[in-house]
Amino acid sequence: MKIAIAQLNPTIGDLAGNAQKILDVAKYVASQGGRLLLTPELSLCGYPPRDLLLNPCFVENMSLSLQQLAKDLPPNLAVLVGTVERNLQASISGGKNLFNGIAWLENGKVQRVFHKRLLPTYDVFDERRYFEPGLEVNYFSLDGIDIGVTICEDLWNDEEFLGKRCYANNPIADLSILGVDLTLNLSASPYTVGKLDFREEMLSHSAVRFQQPIIYVNQVGGNDDLLFDGRSFALNRQGELISRAKGFDTDLLFVEFDAEKRDLVLGSIAAKYECEDEEIWQALVLGVGDYARKCKFSKAVLGLSGGIDSSIVAAIATAALGKENILGVLMPSPYSSEHSISDALALGENLGIETTILPIGELMAGYDKTLGKLFAGTEFGIAEENIQSRIRGNLLMAVANKFGYLLLSTGNKSEMAVGYCTLYGDMNGGLAVISDVPKSRVYSLCRWLNLQGKNRIFGNREDNGEIIPQNVITKAPSAELKPGQIDEDSLPSYKVLDDILQRLINEHQSAAEIIAAGHNPVIVDRIIQMVARAEFKRRQAPPGLKITDRAFGTGWRMPIASNWLIKNSYQSQDFTTSTLI
Amino acid sequence: MKIAIAQLNPTIGDLAGNAQKILDVAKYVASQGGRLLLTPELSLCGYPPRDLLLNPCFVENMSLSLQQLAKDLPPNLAVLVGTVERNLQASISGGKNLFNGIAWLENGKVQRVFHKRLLPTYDVFDERRYFEPGLEVNYFSLDGIDIGVTICEDLWNDEEFLGKRCYANNPIADLSILGVDLTLNLSASPYTVGKLDFREEMLSHSAVRFQQPIIYVNQVGGNDDLLFDGRSFALNRQGELISRAKGFDTDLLFVEFDAEKRDLVLGSIAAKYECEDEEIWQALVLGVGDYARKCKFSKAVLGLSGGIDSSIVAAIATAALGKENILGVLMPSPYSSEHSISDALALGENLGIETTILPIGELMAGYDKTLGKLFAGTEFGIAEENIQSRIRGNLLMAVANKFGYLLLSTGNKSEMAVGYCTLYGDMNGGLAVISDVPKSRVYSLCRWLNLQGKNRIFGNREDNGEIIPQNVITKAPSAELKPGQIDEDSLPSYKVLDDILQRLINEHQSAAEIIAAGHNPVIVDRIIQMVARAEFKRRQAPPGLKITDRAFGTGWRMPIASNWLIKNSYQSQDFTTSTLI
Repeated sequence: MKIAIAQLNPTIGDLAGNAQKILDVAKYVASQGGRLLLTPELSLCGYPPRDLLLNPCFVENMSLSLQQLAKDLPPNLAVLVGTVERNLQASISGGKNLFNGIAWLENGKVQRVFHKRLLPTYDVFDERRYFEPGLEVNYFSLDGIDIGVTICEDLWNDEEFLGKRCYANNPIADLSILGVDLTLNLSASPYTVGKLDFREEMLSHSAVRFQQPIIYVNQVGGNDDLLFDGRSFALNRQGELISRAKGFDTDLLFVEFDAEKRDLVLGSIAAKYECEDEEIWQALVLGVGDYARKCKFSKAVLGLSGGIDSSIVAAIATAALGKENILGVLMPSPYSSEHSISDALALGENLGIETTILPIGELMAGYDKTLGKLFAGTEFGIAEENIQSRIRGNLLMAVANKFGYLLLSTGNKSEMAVGYCTLYGDMNGGLAVISDVPKSRVYSLCRWLNLQGKNRIFGNREDNGEIIPQNVITKAPSAELKPGQIDEDSLPSYKVLDDILQRLINEHQSAAEIIAAGHNPVIVDRIIQMVARAEFKRRQAPPGLKITDRAFGTGWRMPIASNWLIKNSYQSQDFTTSTLI
Repeated sequence: MKIAIAQLNPTIGDLAGNAQKILDVAKYVASQGGRLLLTPELSLCGYPPRDLLLNPCFVENMSLSLQQLAKDLPPNLAVLVGTVERNLQASISGGKNLFNGIAWLENGKVQRVFHKRLLPTYDVFDERRYFEPGLEVNYFSLDGIDIGVTICEDLWNDEEFLGKRCYANNPIADLSILGVDLTLNLSASPYTVGKLDFREEMLSHSAVRFQQPIIYVNQVGGNDDLLFDGRSFALNRQGELISRAKGFDTDLLFVEFDAEKRDLVLGSIAAKYECEDEEIWQALVLGVGDYARKCKFSKAVLGLSGGIDSSIVAAIATAALGKENILGVLMPSPYSSEHSISDALALGENLGIETTILPIGELMAGYDKTLGKLFAGTEFGIAEENIQSRIRGNLLMAVANKFGYLLLSTGNKSEMAVGYCTLYGDMNGGLAVISDVPKSRVYSLCRWLNLQGKNRIFGNREDNGEIIPQNVITKAPSAELKPGQIDEDSLPSYKVLDDILQRLINEHQSAAEIIAAGHNPVIVDRIIQMVARAEFKRRQAPPGLKITDRAFGTGWRMPIASNWLIKNSYQSQDFTTSTLI
């Protein structure tokens, strides 16, 4: 039996467009002799549809789209489509109104809808908000082959592999008892660093443990903060990889189920990524490209400071949207160093993007004059530093508004964590490209990028030189908001900072544990307080592309007016942190 | 038996401070002969603690605080304290790590911890994210009286009253079968308009239906966007109200359980509110006061435009923080009308707050000059309108940063819905005071406020005159971002707009349903598209005080890069909406 995996990139809520994509691929698959076509979780509406699911008319339209799609599909092809189904018992027996389902479409009709059993409700996932868990073991027979159906989280409960049980039930264990020939997993599983290999290892363990071939189908594409990496794959009964789709791109993969051997046959296997930097680069390029495309932007603007953060974001944006669609704006102040201009221009040159210079000195003087009487007798401080950043933010938004560009913000995760950024200033933007990328990773991405060269990254045949100017990588990071300022005046080295933040944020370690790992207690205490105090800034940040298992975004739900971790409580409405350390 | 209800106002995460509050009230209650003291849901950490619960050291500290509190409490007093408890079976049987619990403290020890059974996971509630539902029917015996224990949502499943079953189990039905003498409900139930009466009616229905007296205890206070109204109450076996605590304030209420009659005895009953406007006013004043206090601000700043939104926010802030702690900033432009200055000054005079004037004309000219070359040949439009708003936003943040003030933003819900506001401009602030108050409600609040007069609202004995100047209420609303502009150039009348928005947002009606209710199809379509397109602005808005059952805040989880509802897809990065209608 020829089985096709459609690794699709849906737009959230675009029922007609997504149905058309499924129909197009189905026609091609039928023409190639395919018997069964698999699509990702919620392929009809895109994952995650979030509160669109609370609109009865959205659910009704999805149901109508599904029925129409069933009618339009080619004959002799079974298609599994991700959709929601109403829970008709909800108001009588108690429970959520919907199931997260997979519809089996064949012969012009919806043959059956299978319900997701394990509903992730942690991090960015809110499935218990919308869905009732399915109670039945899901499988169907096609040409004498018994096929088990699981949806994403349904296969994330292998307590042998994970070291703990996450849910009471284990759907693949149930399927194994029933003796199905093959288990499918239709997913929309967001990317995080290293998760690609983890998934293959986990499902390989389950394949061996439960003696079943497994076909894993993943959504691809960026949906707001979430990046879906694709990399669908298939494992045979021995848990060996027999096929793998591309990462970070749509793909169509055919796999063959040998009905006699009751197993999947070796097919094409896309290569793994060389390193985490390559993986992350691909993820961020996809995220910028998809956010722009799905929001109907073709061009983007960003501020170029000559620093490493804006440089990597400019490179990502160029790879995502094309050099002719990026405008870099240099906004020097009297405190800017010579190299901040020359480095930014060199970067613009390397990328081949348009740049323009808007000096802010006169506007700074204008604010000083307007506020002169009110601020009389006070000293230059955080307020004045923030004004500079906000003038730049205002200029960038003016350009974005005037020409219909998407403004990209350039702050990294380390800054966002400790609040070393200005709300309504450098935080401005429609998308925060690297707000989940720690500063030390920004450096390694730049080094990796330069090793690739322009040829491999941008297809520039004439010139395979460096992308990020060397001086951008080697100079000391600085916000340049007052004379001679460098980041390490206010913060520990990024190596130390990032290790503390990794322990605090990703690993939920206590101060005592972080100190026990060898960090200076005074610094640990300060960093913890800075992280807590910056919550009000993060709350107002643009969506940021998620690449770690704990990002500041939809999965980060912290109170602001809280007293935990802030011992000597003091929260300024806004500040860069230079006064704190 | 003398039972005390402590209607407490905890600070989220302040374990030591919250424990001290419980201890203080316990000592007083013991001195008054109380036998049982009730505190709200999660009274030890405050509700909602949100992702603080993901920190193992936070949970550990809560456990230690609870044990210490048990030791410190006076003898012969049983105290029920809201806390979390670890689910020790989680990793073996599958499930969440914690229970949402009520600890019974007595004789220096934690006697037992009861687990919440029904876990709200909708709107602002994420309890399935953290908690495993309790499986046992919760009750204990004290001096021969059998007392059932339920936690908040546990009593929100009366399908007779609600018209549908929300959960499979009904804890009070189970308690009724066991024949307990009295049922307690320890809650942290956020305020929405009309919910105060709704709760009393619902629990009265349950009291009669299940033949049990009920004591309902609610948290009070503002925690970020959520406002807890208090108004704890008690019902006798006939469902009659026998006691009620104050609204929007801490309170301590004693109720008497007659052991012979097996029923509660009539006690003191705080008055209801006269009207919804009074209720909302109290809620917003509490919200501003608590947000400022819990974030350690004593003073606030806001822009005064002479319009009705900034006027009501100034009045709320004055009532919350005191007139000596409010600074109103007037920022006229060449497009400002005469009355925008005179009305704002009159308001400042009425409130007795400090005002200052910072004209923005020169800064506007400065931006025009800086952007002149880049914008050459383009026409005055949205970009230039937004620059004005952002200059004001920048000035207000400069003042907030310089003097450590909390900046209050003044946009109403109608504007936030359709995006008639400028991101990084008038949306700037630490707290959005009226972002869940529709424009038509802003008018009725102002009229109600003026009927009360300064005496009742601010205790101003010499002068009981109007608070909001009449001209502010009667003039046509305008953003004054270009000559002669009024809101109705871009929007339908607020009466029409607010009805459409109520149907669309709160009632989840489809376009067809809204049109069937009598609205112009062209306007309905435009409004729906404006609401969808403004999602990227709302995502970056400050926390806003929630007063309706569907607010733009933690309970509003919409995708941005979505194609639902936007047929002719187009999303500008930012705009006021004047070009759209």
